[in-house]
Amino acid sequence: MLLSGTVVADSATVIDNGAVVVDGTTIEAVGEREALVDQYPDHERREYDIIAPGMVGSHIHSVQSLGRGIADDTELLDWLFDHILPMEGSMSAEEMRTAATLGYLELVESGTTTCIDHLSVSHADQAFEAAGEVGIRALMGKVLMDKESPEALQEDTEDALAESERLIQQYHGAFGDRVRYAVTPRFAVTCSEACLRGARRLADEYDGVRIHTHASENLGEIAAVEKDTGMRNVHWLDEVGLTGEDVVLAHCVHTDASEREVLAETGTHVTHCPSSNMKLASGIAPVLDYLDRGINVALGNDGPPCNNTLDPFTEMRQASLLQKVDELNPTALPAATAFEMSTINGAKAAGFETLGELKPGWKADIVGLRTDTSRATPVHDVLSHLVFATHGDDVAFTMVDGEVLLDDGDVVGVDAESVRAQAQEYADQYS
Amino acid sequence: MLLSGTVVADSATVIDNGAVVVDGTTIEAVGEREALVDQYPDHERREYDIIAPGMVGSHIHSVQSLGRGIADDTELLDWLFDHILPMEGSMSAEEMRTAATLGYLELVESGTTTCIDHLSVSHADQAFEAAGEVGIRALMGKVLMDKESPEALQEDTEDALAESERLIQQYHGAFGDRVRYAVTPRFAVTCSEACLRGARRLADEYDGVRIHTHASENLGEIAAVEKDTGMRNVHWLDEVGLTGEDVVLAHCVHTDASEREVLAETGTHVTHCPSSNMKLASGIAPVLDYLDRGINVALGNDGPPCNNTLDPFTEMRQASLLQKVDELNPTALPAATAFEMSTINGAKAAGFETLGELKPGWKADIVGLRTDTSRATPVHDVLSHLVFATHGDDVAFTMVDGEVLLDDGDVVGVDAESVRAQAQEYADQYS
Repeated sequence: MLLSGTVVADSATVIDNGAVVVDGTTIEAVGEREALVDQYPDHERREYDIIAPGMVGSHIHSVQSLGRGIADDTELLDWLFDHILPMEGSMSAEEMRTAATLGYLELVESGTTTCIDHLSVSHADQAFEAAGEVGIRALMGKVLMDKESPEALQEDTEDALAESERLIQQYHGAFGDRVRYAVTPRFAVTCSEACLRGARRLADEYDGVRIHTHASENLGEIAAVEKDTGMRNVHWLDEVGLTGEDVVLAHCVHTDASEREVLAETGTHVTHCPSSNMKLASGIAPVLDYLDRGINVALGNDGPPCNNTLDPFTEMRQASLLQKVDELNPTALPAATAFEMSTINGAKAAGFETLGELKPGWKADIVGLRTDTSRATPVHDVLSHLVFATHGDDVAFTMVDGEVLLDDGDVVGVDAESVRAQAQEYADQYS
Repeated sequence: MLLSGTVVADSATVIDNGAVVVDGTTIEAVGEREALVDQYPDHERREYDIIAPGMVGSHIHSVQSLGRGIADDTELLDWLFDHILPMEGSMSAEEMRTAATLGYLELVESGTTTCIDHLSVSHADQAFEAAGEVGIRALMGKVLMDKESPEALQEDTEDALAESERLIQQYHGAFGDRVRYAVTPRFAVTCSEACLRGARRLADEYDGVRIHTHASENLGEIAAVEKDTGMRNVHWLDEVGLTGEDVVLAHCVHTDASEREVLAETGTHVTHCPSSNMKLASGIAPVLDYLDRGINVALGNDGPPCNNTLDPFTEMRQASLLQKVDELNPTALPAATAFEMSTINGAKAAGFETLGELKPGWKADIVGLRTDTSRATPVHDVLSHLVFATHGDDVAFTMVDGEVLLDDGDVVGVDAESVRAQAQEYADQYS
């Protein structure tokens, strides 16, 4: 396939009248449209206004999709313990499948081609199968909770780790290596030391398996960990093995200088979730300091209940705007940085190689946008336009691994309308 | 016409399976769909998922539309003096007409039915005519700048006031009283005392004419005013007559307690512009304190160069999220408050009576949303859904004064495609 338009190949490379040629699962060529049309005259052609790398949503809760808007404007602990966790704890396998499918549909429809997905304790198989069906690229894992958790969610440590291992054996590298496994403790508050150390053991034992958890999102969490362990949260995670180049920590809103040193020294990845941090009033993460220290910072929407959208373009804009106002500096976190966080940095966090930029030999994870709308007119700088003016509804074409998942705005191979109807029906029982 | 769907009549009234009946320019009835269909069997019917009052964008720069994305990630003074003002200063009448039309199209397409529009120094007629053509409701005025301004924009005080008076006589109450005049000093820094007092004189002389200006958006502005006048900005404005129930001050990010008292005592309206304040790094306005003091706070997108969208739904969400993170309180500025700011509070600021809620006898300014998308599924609470999950692209129907301006997503009576093409051509000369 030959995709043409203004090609934003990476944060520093824009090709007007450009094209990207795809063969099989990878990109064959990137360059001027005219030359590539001559060179590949028989390739099927698609024309969009902007062609860009697929976005990477580096912290998502697809299975919370039934809870979009379930408890807006609510205190954090009430939100979590009275709404989100009870919903997760009582969802059936069928509900989990529908919720995950809805989440992946929303992602694919708005331009996310890879997600790092924090599932729930039960029915993780359903999300893996849904990712297989929708065709999204994902790093994901069943959630571990073995202490201080609601009864419906708390598991025995060894059972939880054994179930994780079964899922690794079944799904890590599945669907043509599109789907990989992350061992996923919920957070230090609800995981015993044995559980956290067990997560590290599994990640070490299975090649390519990574670790994904929440960390230092809010002050109550940090105080609880410090009370239990005598350590700041990141130091505790480091102590039990949950730092390193294969670890993705979501949020990291509240860290001190010594914790940031640990993150930088160990190569731990951080996922910034600006909309969620705003809506749940967690605080403003020190993203610029992380970037200055060389920490890889990716971008995530978090779950539909705390955002309430999985649109990656909205999140790029939010990341930039939030740092600007926090620093009182309009040049802070410019468009190019937001774009990198949402593409190449996310790819690094998810551990997929040759992903996140449009380059020959790299994975054919590509989006095409149509911007012939009043709200996206005029265009001055395409990269900046992508970050500040476009959003997920402009995405008309989504490709993962060379497969077309969204074609002229329509999802391929999944009956999206039925999924939405089923999701609303399931959602009606939760409040 | 009979519009049916889930009717959000105001921030406290949601009618499932509701309907709104329109006759002429006003709302005839609001209630249960079944009863109203029986009562008005011959009315033309339209069905949407959500029916809501049209949004009020209470601080907009439609004529800056050619500059969307013109200088993102730029220092405020460079942004203003090297990009925005030079563009405004050199735009022809035709460019001004196209820019304003594009702005109004974007507003109508995304659900704004009334705007308070800050034009430019020259060619204000073009924007009035564009508002007449598109059909939007507007309070607007030519900008006054008579000191410390770029040469192309600075005018003689009396000339500027005389031109304002001519425009008042020509356009105040035009197009069936859809369009009204606001005398519009740019801000205290670029307006002499005579100019500001002249604005008050005009507003007093002509019934229904209001005053709209920027105030206390950033610290440099406040310091400049204090240096010139020895007063804090709001005190200076109060001194020269620019406070009161007919005055709308955009931004008010930095005010002290004594200024807030003046705003409250005088009934001055404040327009909060959260995305603009974030992107330009102005700061976070004390919206909750204003509301606590009984100050009427409306909501605005500001101009396309500093947002970069005029979507009112995005702005409601942003207003809520920004206060939550600033206050570290997830219950701050809940959905109902954001909705009021974007509807009834805006109507009060703009000075249009019987506007901003769906009530019998009130103005038929109404929007219809389609939400049959993955990103807007499921719905738990409709009002909260409108604020946190929907956005302007969900708006399929827009009515102002009983006239349909957007019908099934298509603009009525204006060739939007030609306007966009012309806008891009004009925009290409600016950078």
